Amino acid sequence: MGSEDKIISWLCRLTVITAFFFIGFIIGWFARPTTVNHRHASKSFLHDFLDEMQAENIKHHLRKFTRLPHLAGSQQNLDLAKQIRAEWMEFGLDSVELVPYDVLLSYPNKTNPNYISIVDHLGNEIFNTSLAEPVPEGYEDVTDIVPPYSAFSAKGQPEDELVYVNYGRTEDFFKLERELGINCSGKIVIARYGKIFRGNKVKNAMLAGAKGIVLFSDPADYCADGVEPYPDGWNLPGGGAQRGNVLNLNGAGDPLTPGYPAKEYTYRSSLEDAVGLPKIPVHPIGYHDAVHLLQHMGGPLPPDNWKGALNISYRIGPGFMDGLNQNKVRMNIHTNNQVTRIYNVIGWIRGAVEPDRYVILGGHRDAWVFGGIDPVSGAAVVHESVRAAGKLMKKGWRPRRTLIFASWDAEEFGLLGSTEWAEDHARVLQERAVAYINADSAIEGMYTLRVDCTPSLHTLVYDITKKVSSPEEGEEGMTLYQSWHKRDNSTERDAPWISKLGSGSDFEAYFIRLGIASGRARYTKNRKTERYSSYPVYHSVYETYEIVERFYDPSFRRLEAVARVRGGLIFSLADSPVLPLDCVEYAMSLTKYANSIYQLALKHPAAMEQYSVSFDSLFSAVENFTVAAQDFHQRLDQLDTSNALAVRMVNDQLMYLERAFTDPLGLPGRPFYRHIIFAPSSHNKYAGESFPGIYDALFDIENAVDPQEAWDEVKRQISIAAFTVNTAAETLKPVVS
Amino acid sequence: MGSEDKIISWLCRLTVITAFFFIGFIIGWFARPTTVNHRHASKSFLHDFLDEMQAENIKHHLRKFTRLPHLAGSQQNLDLAKQIRAEWMEFGLDSVELVPYDVLLSYPNKTNPNYISIVDHLGNEIFNTSLAEPVPEGYEDVTDIVPPYSAFSAKGQPEDELVYVNYGRTEDFFKLERELGINCSGKIVIARYGKIFRGNKVKNAMLAGAKGIVLFSDPADYCADGVEPYPDGWNLPGGGAQRGNVLNLNGAGDPLTPGYPAKEYTYRSSLEDAVGLPKIPVHPIGYHDAVHLLQHMGGPLPPDNWKGALNISYRIGPGFMDGLNQNKVRMNIHTNNQVTRIYNVIGWIRGAVEPDRYVILGGHRDAWVFGGIDPVSGAAVVHESVRAAGKLMKKGWRPRRTLIFASWDAEEFGLLGSTEWAEDHARVLQERAVAYINADSAIEGMYTLRVDCTPSLHTLVYDITKKVSSPEEGEEGMTLYQSWHKRDNSTERDAPWISKLGSGSDFEAYFIRLGIASGRARYTKNRKTERYSSYPVYHSVYETYEIVERFYDPSFRRLEAVARVRGGLIFSLADSPVLPLDCVEYAMSLTKYANSIYQLALKHPAAMEQYSVSFDSLFSAVENFTVAAQDFHQRLDQLDTSNALAVRMVNDQLMYLERAFTDPLGLPGRPFYRHIIFAPSSHNKYAGESFPGIYDALFDIENAVDPQEAWDEVKRQISIAAFTVNTAAETLKPVVS
Repeated sequence: MGSEDKIISWLCRLTVITAFFFIGFIIGWFARPTTVNHRHASKSFLHDFLDEMQAENIKHHLRKFTRLPHLAGSQQNLDLAKQIRAEWMEFGLDSVELVPYDVLLSYPNKTNPNYISIVDHLGNEIFNTSLAEPVPEGYEDVTDIVPPYSAFSAKGQPEDELVYVNYGRTEDFFKLERELGINCSGKIVIARYGKIFRGNKVKNAMLAGAKGIVLFSDPADYCADGVEPYPDGWNLPGGGAQRGNVLNLNGAGDPLTPGYPAKEYTYRSSLEDAVGLPKIPVHPIGYHDAVHLLQHMGGPLPPDNWKGALNISYRIGPGFMDGLNQNKVRMNIHTNNQVTRIYNVIGWIRGAVEPDRYVILGGHRDAWVFGGIDPVSGAAVVHESVRAAGKLMKKGWRPRRTLIFASWDAEEFGLLGSTEWAEDHARVLQERAVAYINADSAIEGMYTLRVDCTPSLHTLVYDITKKVSSPEEGEEGMTLYQSWHKRDNSTERDAPWISKLGSGSDFEAYFIRLGIASGRARYTKNRKTERYSSYPVYHSVYETYEIVERFYDPSFRRLEAVARVRGGLIFSLADSPVLPLDCVEYAMSLTKYANSIYQLALKHPAAMEQYSVSFDSLFSAVENFTVAAQDFHQRLDQLDTSNALAVRMVNDQLMYLERAFTDPLGLPGRPFYRHIIFAPSSHNKYAGESFPGIYDALFDIENAVDPQEAWDEVKRQISIAAFTVNTAAETLKPVVS
Repeated sequence: MGSEDKIISWLCRLTVITAFFFIGFIIGWFARPTTVNHRHASKSFLHDFLDEMQAENIKHHLRKFTRLPHLAGSQQNLDLAKQIRAEWMEFGLDSVELVPYDVLLSYPNKTNPNYISIVDHLGNEIFNTSLAEPVPEGYEDVTDIVPPYSAFSAKGQPEDELVYVNYGRTEDFFKLERELGINCSGKIVIARYGKIFRGNKVKNAMLAGAKGIVLFSDPADYCADGVEPYPDGWNLPGGGAQRGNVLNLNGAGDPLTPGYPAKEYTYRSSLEDAVGLPKIPVHPIGYHDAVHLLQHMGGPLPPDNWKGALNISYRIGPGFMDGLNQNKVRMNIHTNNQVTRIYNVIGWIRGAVEPDRYVILGGHRDAWVFGGIDPVSGAAVVHESVRAAGKLMKKGWRPRRTLIFASWDAEEFGLLGSTEWAEDHARVLQERAVAYINADSAIEGMYTLRVDCTPSLHTLVYDITKKVSSPEEGEEGMTLYQSWHKRDNSTERDAPWISKLGSGSDFEAYFIRLGIASGRARYTKNRKTERYSSYPVYHSVYETYEIVERFYDPSFRRLEAVARVRGGLIFSLADSPVLPLDCVEYAMSLTKYANSIYQLALKHPAAMEQYSVSFDSLFSAVENFTVAAQDFHQRLDQLDTSNALAVRMVNDQLMYLERAFTDPLGLPGRPFYRHIIFAPSSHNKYAGESFPGIYDALFDIENAVDPQEAWDEVKRQISIAAFTVNTAAETLKPVVS
């Protein structure tokens, strides 16, 4: 070859090489993803995570955490907090901290016990209720078992005739006052537990002018048919009684620092200005004691459906007990309120991709006594979730978003630990929190799963339960979803029943105040056939490890299933590239709630006409929301998931959807209930009410003193609801007009 | 070559080619940025953008928009809205919409004019104030010039003795009642304009029990020395009077729909329940008319510093005018409130990278009459910014974030258009708004620049003004920063003076209610030597195009400079990869405010001691914030700006910082003022107060009826301020604990 040929040949080679270099370059350029595709990785880890949580471990945690009482504010509960911190660190969390607050708690006076007496006309106490519950076998040497009491009861020794007010519900007092003509003013009332939150009973009694209220557990409400009292079965023994706070906080948290965290430097209001404290003495008793009070009452016979199951004939009162003698009832209450330090345990796993997005699993640690069910069945499950997450991290996994685990303190005293933490971190939570999953008692029955959650979590709940096995014997090979579906189908569609969130547990501040998508899951009874309230030994000394191990979940597979549901939820929320929240489900729920509140209003057709009350704006808003939600999910299907900012933007829309339903002005008279779609019922904190502003405006409106004003308020609330739904729809629309 | 050699040779070639392919691939892989580097692009475009805005164009816009009156609610103002929409579309915005609201406005009764009379003892009106201002030359044929009135005045014809209350400030009423022993209850009061917002004067008069209030412009406050009245100079003529609303809305927006946008379906309260309406008649007059009312008054002589410049000897009243005759003053006010449709014009430029981040430039369009200064000097500047942005877009530029331009309606009636839009879009603004720059009157004097803004914008303001030339003759080659610095140095450091935001313009809802970083800039007088209030012809018919063209800015270079400042701010906020917000400046301001409120409290050393009032928690919080801000900016220096998500995360922290200072519970009695660091003064809406909760709690505390309660409130407010500053610090800390 001549030198020219050589040059040409080399030029050719160079060209070819350069060409291949460029091809390589271009392929390299485009092959590189702009973000790590997290989806495949996380799917396999979800399976690992669910499998890692095991019944035996949960059993072990439950045993370990229920040996001693862990009352909020006690040394034992601080010790437990430290133990949990140490174990969570050992499990592998990035950091774990104890977070203290100084909140108002309430304890019986140790030297001056609370009780109720029957006193004769000479003032002699001829009967006194018991000062404590008989302690269950094996716990005889345990000290510091707090006797049954109503936390935050006013002190006092009121003495008067007794009036029986059934469950003490709004409708019970209406019946007494409007139909039976019985005035409770200045009397002591006695109400049976059940149906509604005890704080509402106390509030109703105060509104009726009562000067004290006795709460008792009736077998009709705290004993299941064919079941023996503990320890032979899981019914409430006659000497058992239900502790519990009797506050009406409406989401305020610590009564002395509403709206702000109870830190050392925080200003505290006086006790007179405190939020939600009852102004009258309150005390709980068991049914053995209740019989004595009830069987000596005067007055008319109770209506049939007020009679309970005490198998005594009694009257409603007032009237002298035992006919013509002048016996009365005296309450002796010496409970003290005191500012006390509590401790949340907060554990963190830093998110790998979006550390500034938080998914929270929180449940309380404090218990009235041993807390076998409430809360340790839940806390044991959280503990197992933390252990499993730590295990995965040791295999190299780290969630896309940050995971926060919380062991709340003082839930029993008004959701205090969780609410103070929410108040403390409201700004960052508002900006960064994706979801809050609650972990109170994981079991309250032996039948099937129960889930209460925000509508946008419905689909994820169904998805996760399809990945979990049924824990029931004889259902091998069946998924939890199938088992649940079979046992508790929704009335509205062919899928398991999911309920609205009410309150009474630690999700309240996160969901109702801050507007963070929230949910809870637990194992429950058959709600169609088992009519007792809650579970029979609720808040008694009989909530032990043994009651779970012997009766509720001997294999611990039910708790395992609950652990996997709760764990699966937080795992998916923390790890899915696109947030697994379903806006169309929200739209469907809004449609249902709008129809239902409209039906309620339609019970007053003449007034609707007279005051020109229309729900058109609300229905139109729900329609707007429905279209926006459907369009949003259609656009989501076309999302370029390799574009990190585009994914972040839709995730922000998903995350902030729940926030959009909150209104800083709050509900009328309840400034810390800011969610316009959901709030605890004004008549029962445990129950969730949809469109609560409209519901409350309509409540008992036929008896309004000023109907014009009352219906104006209905119209105002419809307008607020319509605006809120419209504005939530706006958040789902394309971000530029 | 044998076939083996050939194979080897081909293998060699293949290897080389493959090697180069891989090299290419790898280089390609790593060469690709994971996000577009926007920084260089935007810097050169900033220069283009500033240059594009030109004096001649602003002059043209001002001329065009000031030919007719544009009162809110009028056909002319709707026509102008449509014209602006059309021109903004033509300039090249992505979309422009008219957004209507139906708000409460207030107009004089056309057939029954408002005036003030002197009536003799027989009830004859022996003097009446003028019904209109003499119309300036060239505008004689213009119809629909609304006469001077106080919008939202109550109707009525009260008649009584007159009491002169100086400026009608809180301290003026204190002086009258506490030192001079004059009771205004049941009297008509007359106050001179100036020093504070007129609505505060009316509120003070109501609190003092007055049954009407006359407002007048005194030459001491509305004439500059050595300047002729318009049209020969820019002083207020004796027949001119100041229109203006006399509401006390405290940020509520439309008085009938507080907290919610005034849409068709929105519930409206009754007029009795409306927010902020005065309960007494109010009317403004000029100094020619004022002389007549004042010179016949009885009572003691006014204190020297109350005398103004009317060159008449008058007394304060009450007392019969003219000594022993029984003349009185009668107000004749027939102004009507009516729900009226208003229109905002909203224009959008979709952001290229982060369309879900909004930077807003907003200013009002409605004017009392021609609006030569207020607002069209500002609106013309906005118009020029929109034109310049459109021009750049035609060159291929698109901002990183979304730009929103707003022409607000009904600002003059209580910031209604801007507040309703903020209420309407509160959720998305809260989630997405980076900053709000206000564009009311761009000029109120001929001396130098005036900027009021949130502390985090200080540094950007200085940076931008260094890129703009001084508009002053004889300052060629000097930057606006240098000119400004020379003319108005801060008392605290060697840099131009920047003030806090007060209120009285449309940024209020964005800054004080929603917590969006905000600022405003305009050309102003020499605040040290020019003591007149506002600018003399403020809200009179003499605010014409000509007053700007002849006196305020003949070259239109001052307006051009303001346009470049406002434009440069929104450009940088919309286009900088990392948001140009400075948290350390916020820390410095907080330190200053904490010291200053502490000094105020220290005026009561005995009480501080007696009630154990400590500012330690506040100082400690400010220290926490300072450390967090410094650390944040240090981390920012190490930010990997090629990581799109990492940049987004710090930008979110920067964006949400201002939000963190807001509290949904609002300030005491002012639920729509939610910013804990800044609020309009309770005694003068125009002025900004720092730590307003503490300030108001301390105000006049030496005269508190219950000192314990008053000092408890001080302590509560310190606690809230400390918590808020701490929680804002938390938002700047690393996102994972």
